[in-house]
Amino acid sequence: MSEFKGLKAVFLNCSIKKDGSKSHTQLLMNRAAGIMESEGVEVEHVYVLDYDIAFGMIKDGQKEDPKQSDDWPKLQQKIMEANIFVLGSPIWLGAKSSVATLVIERMYAYSGDHNDKDQYAYYGKTGGVLITGNEDGAKAVAMETLYSLSHIGYTIPPQADAAWLGEAGPGPSYGDTEWAGEKLDGPAGYDNDFTNRNTTFMAWNLMHAAKLLQDNGGFPAKGNTSKDWEQVTNAKNQNPEYR
Amino acid sequence: MSEFKGLKAVFLNCSIKKDGSKSHTQLLMNRAAGIMESEGVEVEHVYVLDYDIAFGMIKDGQKEDPKQSDDWPKLQQKIMEANIFVLGSPIWLGAKSSVATLVIERMYAYSGDHNDKDQYAYYGKTGGVLITGNEDGAKAVAMETLYSLSHIGYTIPPQADAAWLGEAGPGPSYGDTEWAGEKLDGPAGYDNDFTNRNTTFMAWNLMHAAKLLQDNGGFPAKGNTSKDWEQVTNAKNQNPEYR
Amino acid sequence: MSEFKGLKAVFLNCSIKKDGSKSHTQLLMNRAAGIMESEGVEVEHVYVLDYDIAFGMIKDGQKEDPKQSDDWPKLQQKIMEANIFVLGSPIWLGAKSSVATLVIERMYAYSGDHNDKDQYAYYGKTGGVLITGNEDGAKAVAMETLYSLSHIGYTIPPQADAAWLGEAGPGPSYGDTEWAGEKLDGPAGYDNDFTNRNTTFMAWNLMHAAKLLQDNGGFPAKGNTSKDWEQVTNAKNQNPEYR
Amino acid sequence: MSEFKGLKAVFLNCSIKKDGSKSHTQLLMNRAAGIMESEGVEVEHVYVLDYDIAFGMIKDGQKEDPKQSDDWPKLQQKIMEANIFVLGSPIWLGAKSSVATLVIERMYAYSGDHNDKDQYAYYGKTGGVLITGNEDGAKAVAMETLYSLSHIGYTIPPQADAAWLGEAGPGPSYGDTEWAGEKLDGPAGYDNDFTNRNTTFMAWNLMHAAKLLQDNGGFPAKGNTSKDWEQVTNAKNQNPEYR
Repeated sequence: MSEFKGLKAVFLNCSIKKDGSKSHTQLLMNRAAGIMESEGVEVEHVYVLDYDIAFGMIKDGQKEDPKQSDDWPKLQQKIMEANIFVLGSPIWLGAKSSVATLVIERMYAYSGDHNDKDQYAYYGKTGGVLITGNEDGAKAVAMETLYSLSHIGYTIPPQADAAWLGEAGPGPSYGDTEWAGEKLDGPAGYDNDFTNRNTTFMAWNLMHAAKLLQDNGGFPAKGNTSKDWEQVTNAKNQNPEYR
Repeated sequence: MSEFKGLKAVFLNCSIKKDGSKSHTQLLMNRAAGIMESEGVEVEHVYVLDYDIAFGMIKDGQKEDPKQSDDWPKLQQKIMEANIFVLGSPIWLGAKSSVATLVIERMYAYSGDHNDKDQYAYYGKTGGVLITGNEDGAKAVAMETLYSLSHIGYTIPPQADAAWLGEAGPGPSYGDTEWAGEKLDGPAGYDNDFTNRNTTFMAWNLMHAAKLLQDNGGFPAKGNTSKDWEQVTNAKNQNPEYR
Repeated sequence: MSEFKGLKAVFLNCSIKKDGSKSHTQLLMNRAAGIMESEGVEVEHVYVLDYDIAFGMIKDGQKEDPKQSDDWPKLQQKIMEANIFVLGSPIWLGAKSSVATLVIERMYAYSGDHNDKDQYAYYGKTGGVLITGNEDGAKAVAMETLYSLSHIGYTIPPQADAAWLGEAGPGPSYGDTEWAGEKLDGPAGYDNDFTNRNTTFMAWNLMHAAKLLQDNGGFPAKGNTSKDWEQVTNAKNQNPEYR
Repeated sequence: MSEFKGLKAVFLNCSIKKDGSKSHTQLLMNRAAGIMESEGVEVEHVYVLDYDIAFGMIKDGQKEDPKQSDDWPKLQQKIMEANIFVLGSPIWLGAKSSVATLVIERMYAYSGDHNDKDQYAYYGKTGGVLITGNEDGAKAVAMETLYSLSHIGYTIPPQADAAWLGEAGPGPSYGDTEWAGEKLDGPAGYDNDFTNRNTTFMAWNLMHAAKLLQDNGGFPAKGNTSKDWEQVTNAKNQNPEYR
């Protein structure tokens, strides 16, 4: 129970529903978060639309314009304090939500910052993604999200995505107990073994990767810092024509 | 020099050119491979079109049909023996090449295999991607490729992709020394600092992740094996409505 | 000059900059809009962040919650009055902007509405996309955007996307006259023949498609309306095993 | 019945199965083709893996290397003779198949050819896509495929994609009558109203667009030909700063 003690995880729900209590994605996120909490990880949930987030490739909207409200710096602090980041997104037209896109833009605006090893600031953290939708698009959302995290410095462990989707066409969302006026035989998706297995794998793999990185004092720093890369063996001093 | 000794890397060039000596992507791959070799990693290059690869969600095309030639099992063996996998792809119409897609399909056909810890067989390995093209699509190719690797068990370290692209429109490819009849001021892309830096970061991050995993005896096995996941804390026994 | 008279086009700039006067994407949009205006099309420009747009799969945020401000219905009206829709987006991390994603979600919320032929409401309209960025992602943005438009009823003419991007790595944005403290040899991208040609093609193809559809009284209505499709030759009464 | 007489459609099945009789995607394609045939369109089916297709950004593999077999030119001829093109693809790891990618590359190699109006050769044609898979990725496949077609000159009518997918996780494929040893209650997906409706819409919209274009003598040629675009109102002579 104490193996993962000392690790922190932040779960950002990027649903586009104003009222977070109606988010289906949250239900799947709760399962992954439940695993982590049971294993000693300190978990914080953020429902992004409970906050007022400014648009822009900016760090702090209020510094840009004092009349503009912007809660992002608070969320960024939670993200920076966490070893594990899990983004939750619904799917609309096969793509991640506008809120998820906004979150990634705002995280990206800090991607030039450095940690105390002079690596990009997100180095040493690990990330994953949880997705729900009616019918299609989970892998497309996972691709974009995990790529964004990897590209700014996160380590992506094996099988860092999990999702639930119903059959093609309109249908119940994750956790719905009725659809088209009829009572379902249990909440939609709850007993989908594939989703449960992948959610379990994702939660454990994020914990394992976070622990490995923590035990190692972060991601090793050589060849990947803004200053040293030209001092070590690097691409410039390799002959592209030699193989 | 010996820090990364004992690690193996395989570089698969998924160019669609019959003659590998004309591949521009190879030139960028050579730079990343050169870094690894200089640091003690044993590197093997595979030019996929030098082999005869069958189509299908199959492990061995010859077992399916003895009249069909299929070199894939040889390539699969190289992939399984390597700690590090780097896929190189050109971009056509904003997408990864047909050869890259074929490679990923064939790797996927083995994704149900297990290692001696009962994890999926690719667990414990790390992967990255190198891309060249005239103008656009590197991130889209990286998204699809890195996602595929992650989804079948690879660990993706920070910044595991690097690319070179020219300005929008037709133009020289990586390493070209002339374009539209005019001699260029040095081979295209060779002195692009952004590409060189990212290639360096990718190479080092793959080595660091491979070493971390090797020192750890692979990726930790708990909560991520086909048999044990229902025996440990898992998604099924978490209440989705509790947060 | 009067061939395209009577057609309306709306250009939605989905930049994430608060101040629209600083949008680089607008500069490219102005060129496409200029072509249309010169040819008699009535063009309206909308800078989305000049409006207050609510999140949600909703038609009118104020109807959902009277305390919530939501200018979307005004924008939706402009979209419904126009024959031609052009979305402009910057690229961040290889994806369309959060504002573009928000716009598409809000348009999607109306996708169940029907026109007077009982087709989906966007039938009879045509759409395209314009993209600018430093280095990469234009085709990925075009794919998602054009697909979304097609999927909700727009007709996509040939080559309905145009973009400008610089070489891989940080660099000037479209129209920048200096970069890294140095004055450029003319605004970046203005004389890129490929971008100018594609922008020209896009503008003309949208006008041609809009005119064809207008002259035809919209998109033909048979086999594509919510009520008649089961009355005409349809997929249900075809034998899937017969080829 | 004769409204669409004189139109030709070619359906290319890009399954990765060697034996086309086992393709699930073909079953859905047959339904769309059946609609067209019933309405007077001359339909030809091509199962791509029945042919020997060379890799490369090349028009004719045999001209490149006489020892190399390449049936592509035969397929290209069928494509050029058809008014309507429908690509069918399975989904593997959220992406279109290697065979679909190969087909698009080979079509792309001809994209610089011109028709007798000096437009790109695919102008005047219309295209769509049909997709089947176990669980996810249809929209991603549609995005890439429809974009590729549009970008090389095809007109994409409204709702030009249709798909069938089951619930998340392993499961029957389209048309399967049993799964995991149990007999299903009818072939999987056959009675999915959403898939049937979308397939119907796609088939009719392709016929309508093809007819509109045929009646119009192709896509209008002004502002979109390689030679005239600089002679008509174009992007170069618009002031980007004027709005």
